[in-house]
Amino acid sequence: MMEDQPIALELAKEQREISVASFFEKNRHLLGFDNPRKALLTTIKEAVDNSLDACEEGGILPEISVEVIEMGNDRFRIIIEDNGPGIVKKQIPNIFAKLLYGSKFFKLSQSRGQQGIGISASVLYAQLTTGKPARITSRIGKNHPAHYYELHIDTQKNKPEIIKDDTIEWNKEHGTKIELDLEGSYQKGDQSIDQYLKQTAIVNPHVSLIYTNPKAEQLIFPRASEKMPKKPIEIKPHPYGVEIGVLMSMLKVTESRTLQSFLMNEFSRVGSGTAKQICANAGLMPNIKPKQVSRGMAQKLEEGIKNTKIISPPADCISPIGGDLLEKGLRKEINAEFYTATTRPPEVYRGNPFVVEVGLAYGGQQDAEGGIRLLRYANRVPLLYQQGACAVTKSVVNTAWRNYGLSQSRGAMPIGPMTLAVHIASVWVPFTSESKEAIAHYPVIIKEIKLAIQECGRKLASYVNKKRKIQFESNKRDYIQTFIPHVGEALKELLKLKEADEKKIEKLLAEILEKKRGKLEAIEAKNLEYDEEFAKIGKSEDEENEES
Amino acid sequence: MMEDQPIALELAKEQREISVASFFEKNRHLLGFDNPRKALLTTIKEAVDNSLDACEEGGILPEISVEVIEMGNDRFRIIIEDNGPGIVKKQIPNIFAKLLYGSKFFKLSQSRGQQGIGISASVLYAQLTTGKPARITSRIGKNHPAHYYELHIDTQKNKPEIIKDDTIEWNKEHGTKIELDLEGSYQKGDQSIDQYLKQTAIVNPHVSLIYTNPKAEQLIFPRASEKMPKKPIEIKPHPYGVEIGVLMSMLKVTESRTLQSFLMNEFSRVGSGTAKQICANAGLMPNIKPKQVSRGMAQKLEEGIKNTKIISPPADCISPIGGDLLEKGLRKEINAEFYTATTRPPEVYRGNPFVVEVGLAYGGQQDAEGGIRLLRYANRVPLLYQQGACAVTKSVVNTAWRNYGLSQSRGAMPIGPMTLAVHIASVWVPFTSESKEAIAHYPVIIKEIKLAIQECGRKLASYVNKKRKIQFESNKRDYIQTFIPHVGEALKELLKLKEADEKKIEKLLAEILEKKRGKLEAIEAKNLEYDEEFAKIGKSEDEENEES
Repeated sequence: MMEDQPIALELAKEQREISVASFFEKNRHLLGFDNPRKALLTTIKEAVDNSLDACEEGGILPEISVEVIEMGNDRFRIIIEDNGPGIVKKQIPNIFAKLLYGSKFFKLSQSRGQQGIGISASVLYAQLTTGKPARITSRIGKNHPAHYYELHIDTQKNKPEIIKDDTIEWNKEHGTKIELDLEGSYQKGDQSIDQYLKQTAIVNPHVSLIYTNPKAEQLIFPRASEKMPKKPIEIKPHPYGVEIGVLMSMLKVTESRTLQSFLMNEFSRVGSGTAKQICANAGLMPNIKPKQVSRGMAQKLEEGIKNTKIISPPADCISPIGGDLLEKGLRKEINAEFYTATTRPPEVYRGNPFVVEVGLAYGGQQDAEGGIRLLRYANRVPLLYQQGACAVTKSVVNTAWRNYGLSQSRGAMPIGPMTLAVHIASVWVPFTSESKEAIAHYPVIIKEIKLAIQECGRKLASYVNKKRKIQFESNKRDYIQTFIPHVGEALKELLKLKEADEKKIEKLLAEILEKKRGKLEAIEAKNLEYDEEFAKIGKSEDEENEES
Repeated sequence: MMEDQPIALELAKEQREISVASFFEKNRHLLGFDNPRKALLTTIKEAVDNSLDACEEGGILPEISVEVIEMGNDRFRIIIEDNGPGIVKKQIPNIFAKLLYGSKFFKLSQSRGQQGIGISASVLYAQLTTGKPARITSRIGKNHPAHYYELHIDTQKNKPEIIKDDTIEWNKEHGTKIELDLEGSYQKGDQSIDQYLKQTAIVNPHVSLIYTNPKAEQLIFPRASEKMPKKPIEIKPHPYGVEIGVLMSMLKVTESRTLQSFLMNEFSRVGSGTAKQICANAGLMPNIKPKQVSRGMAQKLEEGIKNTKIISPPADCISPIGGDLLEKGLRKEINAEFYTATTRPPEVYRGNPFVVEVGLAYGGQQDAEGGIRLLRYANRVPLLYQQGACAVTKSVVNTAWRNYGLSQSRGAMPIGPMTLAVHIASVWVPFTSESKEAIAHYPVIIKEIKLAIQECGRKLASYVNKKRKIQFESNKRDYIQTFIPHVGEALKELLKLKEADEKKIEKLLAEILEKKRGKLEAIEAKNLEYDEEFAKIGKSEDEENEES
């Protein structure tokens, strides 16, 4: 059988290329379109994230309107409009109707979008479920016309198919508007559009949002700060964490003439001294041509980099919210007794700088019986799905919350009246799927989140302990006050005392007990010290666990 | 600022296309390359899955050898060789060094691979971490030469880069061999290569596997059945579950001349009668040309399909293991007391047929105190990671195991000495990520898994109840036997009886208690009936929960 006509020839006929659009058409759940409810949220999220990125890149305070209209029969129309810089005509089709096309993928600086997939995936989903094209309006300035496009995606080729291309009147000087019809399902509650917008407002105080829901109710999230976030600066990759394969392709395409200038030009934190040091450690000449570097030499270079001390990457590629603003955001949205927040110094995973921020709001009207409420953010975007799969959740669960006055079963979320917000800002957030719902379990990320939580946790512990002490004292005072008159009365009867004697005894008793109370306080203070010692011990235990 | 030079012009310069290889280079964790340990397993899994698919497609009983060699410095060499049909020369580079290229993506029939990503992703990872090319040898028949390639992936273009292209001597008539050097980490235990191969053997009794681990130990999993699995037959999509967007693109590219023939030619289970019925229900003429169908008409057509009764898709596109073989596999690998297995009838999610099979092994030397052991399979491939995110886990956790004699806390895995194997076979398994580690939560899939579990569960319950009854009886007998002589002796002393009387009394007591025991048994039998009734009630409760 093998001989006359090898089977392989027959099988070969079936081999072909798969367009990335066909791939995601079949695998839509990878992009967050698992079900109609999530599809609606994902679409709004992708559009709003893009609008926010565009406004910030353009240095414009964002004003965004989101409208969701119920069309009947599980169909919804979504209209999202921003006051951003707009998009030049010829790029509109590619940006909205071609997967893996964008400006942020190769750029090492913080942004909400990063993959060039999200909004085109929404267009694809709308097209699949209603057959309707995406309607885009965009204008880049007063003296430029507003362009209107109707777009489909040709899934077999992953290319835009232009249904309509027009110039229209638009009373906006600059901005972009997208209109999509899609199958969806609208619900309030957790993981809803309302929640997503509310949480977006917490970490984006410079944003103004107007939201009209399918019931035609309007919710307005007004701007809380006129200050634009610091604009993140694009950086080059840091030598640490660059793998040999990447190094080899960089060497192949570089325009630098020598290995030394290659190292200086293509990486951050490499000056001539460091470059020479790397070459020396690698046993390579600084003046060889990059194109002459063989695989073996590249391997030496990789080793050379590892053995050279290079300072950490600059953090100005990242724009954290800042502890103050994060705390403000929590104060605005959550009614609690105690607030605190912290921003960690920058760290690096696989060559990518990142910063972790944590804020917490404790007590007040929050539910004391159930698990704490966890808000997860990546590059200022709330993450509403897949909490269980997220590095943030793992870090929270692995923190010893009992040291900070909350109850917690082993391996579970802590219990108590608390909201915990965790933000990770990075030039490249490693998500567990294209739908960007959970952060991958890189050990250094988990460690940083835990350290940030512990910083806030210690402040929380001292508040909770103080509160407990006050409670204890006031309980005691109550006790003394109810106790003394009874004793007085009893003694009066027993010893046949006069009214005056009774009062005298009561006063005496009060004095004795107050004195005793002083001693009690001293003992209690000692206890508190023990508590703090214990918290410290707990902390170092945590860190030890980390390593294992 | 907006006027002189719109910002959009500046921003536009950064927009560009992203190759799918660059995308996955940055997002390697999506493909199962999160860490060195997993990377090693993923690579072996992808290569073995491909070998098994190729052998089965070629009608060849698979003989596969897997070798893992430690090279020091966290580097490993992996060599996987099969006796499959081989690959024609010109396709070798694309299959191994181009992402999204393959034969299985557009084909509606069961296979292990489906996306055309896996093996090229392994090549990409090897290249990134060691800079070494993939070495491929393949031969399609005795009268054909063996081809040898060394391949890199050009990540910027997602295209193969041929380092070496040669013809070599190979003592194999047909087959394929791949050799990769990569960064990895080798460990035994759960989620290990050993586990993956062992679990593969359970559900692929026709496969012969030879595995040499880094310690140069050889493990052989011999073939347990000479019978090839039934070859799945390719089908066309079923009309149910085809969305309007897909319908519109199918109408655009079809070669059929009329709507009626389009429906008959492009879909399974549509004959001329059904086609006419669909047209009638859609209010469309059967003889209109497919290219004339507008979006509005396509929408009517979609409605028409929904309102027409069409029989379920054929199941011969799927090749389940079969209850008997699944049970045999469990018997071979797990030492238990009770085995059972079941195969559900085919069902359909989003137009894709699928079959769920469940097998369980209870008791014996399995740990009775901890949670049960869950083995998950998709298209005969063991899934070792992301158990928490999998539809199988959700189904297991949502089953009321107490009805079947296991203990279980709400929302948790059941506790008991049991191994549960769940297999889902489909023309397209919806995984939660490209690394194919967990199945997405489609409600109909979860429902089918639960139904299959319940079928096995009921058989388990009757075994466990019988066992419990026997235990109860034997306890009672022991009790009676220890009790009677003491009573006899006591009475003898009390009443000053003779030895003979004592024996008589003992006999009498034994008789009385045996009689009583008869009654007890009747009561117990009644209890068992109640138990069964209860199990039925539990079952319908389950199904009600399903709907909500």
